[in-house]
Amino acid sequence: MQLTFKPYTLNLKHQFTLAQSSRSTTPVVLTKIEYENYVGYGEASMPPYLGESHETVIKFLSKVNLKQFKDPFQLSDILEYVDKIAPKNTAAKAAVDIALHDLLGKIMNKAWYQIWGFAREKAPLTTYTIGIDSEEVIRQKVKEAEPYKIIKVKLGRDNDKEIIKIIRSVTDKPIAVDVNQGWKDWQKALDMIYWLEEQNTLFVEQPMPKEMIDDMALLTDESPLPTFADEAVQGIDDVLKTRGVYSGINIKLMKCGGMRNAREMLSIARALNMQVMLGCMTETSCAVSAAAQLAPAVDFADLDGNLLITNDPFAGVQVINGKALALKQAGIGVELKDNEFWDGSNK
Amino acid sequence: MQLTFKPYTLNLKHQFTLAQSSRSTTPVVLTKIEYENYVGYGEASMPPYLGESHETVIKFLSKVNLKQFKDPFQLSDILEYVDKIAPKNTAAKAAVDIALHDLLGKIMNKAWYQIWGFAREKAPLTTYTIGIDSEEVIRQKVKEAEPYKIIKVKLGRDNDKEIIKIIRSVTDKPIAVDVNQGWKDWQKALDMIYWLEEQNTLFVEQPMPKEMIDDMALLTDESPLPTFADEAVQGIDDVLKTRGVYSGINIKLMKCGGMRNAREMLSIARALNMQVMLGCMTETSCAVSAAAQLAPAVDFADLDGNLLITNDPFAGVQVINGKALALKQAGIGVELKDNEFWDGSNK
Repeated sequence: MQLTFKPYTLNLKHQFTLAQSSRSTTPVVLTKIEYENYVGYGEASMPPYLGESHETVIKFLSKVNLKQFKDPFQLSDILEYVDKIAPKNTAAKAAVDIALHDLLGKIMNKAWYQIWGFAREKAPLTTYTIGIDSEEVIRQKVKEAEPYKIIKVKLGRDNDKEIIKIIRSVTDKPIAVDVNQGWKDWQKALDMIYWLEEQNTLFVEQPMPKEMIDDMALLTDESPLPTFADEAVQGIDDVLKTRGVYSGINIKLMKCGGMRNAREMLSIARALNMQVMLGCMTETSCAVSAAAQLAPAVDFADLDGNLLITNDPFAGVQVINGKALALKQAGIGVELKDNEFWDGSNK
Repeated sequence: MQLTFKPYTLNLKHQFTLAQSSRSTTPVVLTKIEYENYVGYGEASMPPYLGESHETVIKFLSKVNLKQFKDPFQLSDILEYVDKIAPKNTAAKAAVDIALHDLLGKIMNKAWYQIWGFAREKAPLTTYTIGIDSEEVIRQKVKEAEPYKIIKVKLGRDNDKEIIKIIRSVTDKPIAVDVNQGWKDWQKALDMIYWLEEQNTLFVEQPMPKEMIDDMALLTDESPLPTFADEAVQGIDDVLKTRGVYSGINIKLMKCGGMRNAREMLSIARALNMQVMLGCMTETSCAVSAAAQLAPAVDFADLDGNLLITNDPFAGVQVINGKALALKQAGIGVELKDNEFWDGSNK
């Protein structure tokens, strides 16, 4: 098995504003694993606030020696080896994991939603994210969101109600809210959630700082809407800690290290009677298509990362009737739009 | 997809004596699912104390209509449908689950240990079970156990030390102990476990009645050996309850409803930092080979069910250097020894 990789920079359709940051590009590293006549593709996406970068991912991937493994089906051993190369580096690890899954699925000639036994069409409606922005831009984004049935709104600053009112002035679609730890007072958060419920909101993601565990547990207990842990849950080891604190978890491949861990987290969350949503970073159709394999088994999908960029080198996951559906192709179901892309200059 | 089934009766090499019962046969129902040019095999094994029988399994399987499903890869939906036909009936459900897994693995041309990403050779040494019996028969059974590196002993009556001493008079192999809820006093149980530890015992399975949860938690807390829940854990929903009460769980396909649930229970137990052992009933190489697919991921394997019978219609799992290893063939890795068996008279 041979691993190669290619740094790349995604251009965002819109300046992307969260509670604490703003940017117009996202660095990614695309990966390729070749074995016999098969090629698997993967991706690491590194929004800067998560601590990985082109530099750290390249450094990590340079240490990955897959030539020592004769059999890609010994996935557990391979990923254990990769995991032990260095702590954290979850996006870099996901880039290996995704490419391996793509490869294995192609060898078995099945998509991973099939290998996992899920019915592709059962994927929930995907949300489409609207960042914090000016009234004019918000209105514009809501129009762009026409194909999507649920609008996800980034809140957590001092103009939350204002933003919702702008959105409600142009659409009555259900809303999902991502606060990115922006609310610091659980009583005020609860008041806001009651107000949001009246505005046809489906759930609230990471309403409070992840460290405010007791307050968050109180909020979830009183909340009329389900709450989801995002910043508070990274990988497998974090799921149990969110029990009793949140209603559910947001699984993202870049946080948890890839598809294998994501599938495990789904099992664990279900055993704990928790809801599951599936999220992504701004990333190409490669990583989003990988995440989409798990979509039929989750309650909410937030798989719009590829829709927010202008230079996606892959074709894959498609939005059909508001659902982000994996292609029916083997592996993670992606193709390079331009076969010369991989050999071309680093954009 | 077409499901057919065949009731069959296994003849045991030795009268099988547990703390509460004794018998010389085990009823099973073998299943076959045909789809296009593929055939998958499965099995329900019904030790009488678990409540299922030829009659109940036949009744259940007669209600299973797989013809309504066009795609065997929609495993989650199919098994959800099967599960909802009636509560319990876990052996009957396992018979469908195993045959479906065999079928799917054959279509993908991979064994399930490969599809799950496990390295076949990582399976732990399997135990070989010796029931409660006369001194002469125990000595004889220990001799028969020559190929196996760990002896599993059924305890839980008033002659526990006597039995261990007989075994220790003929072999110094490590011992695993299954008490089948036989000990009622946790202090006495703890004394016995300390004594067993000195006799080179690896673990103690279901030492106390499953209802004695608080006493069992105390025992596990004090025990120098890991304790495993068997009767106390049936399916997915029971794993969480055993946390803090036992060190680990014994997963058996016939208790949990099959390979899919078993795989889930492994994930859940690991998330709870619990150990996992894999057990079986007296059953043919079909169900044991299905269980063996998961063996590389567990701490202890007790996969001797096919070794305890005289009329196994299948060839499959093999004991090599003390490990019960799945064959390298696709699906669950089994073949009928006699192709006419299925059409022959019901033995």
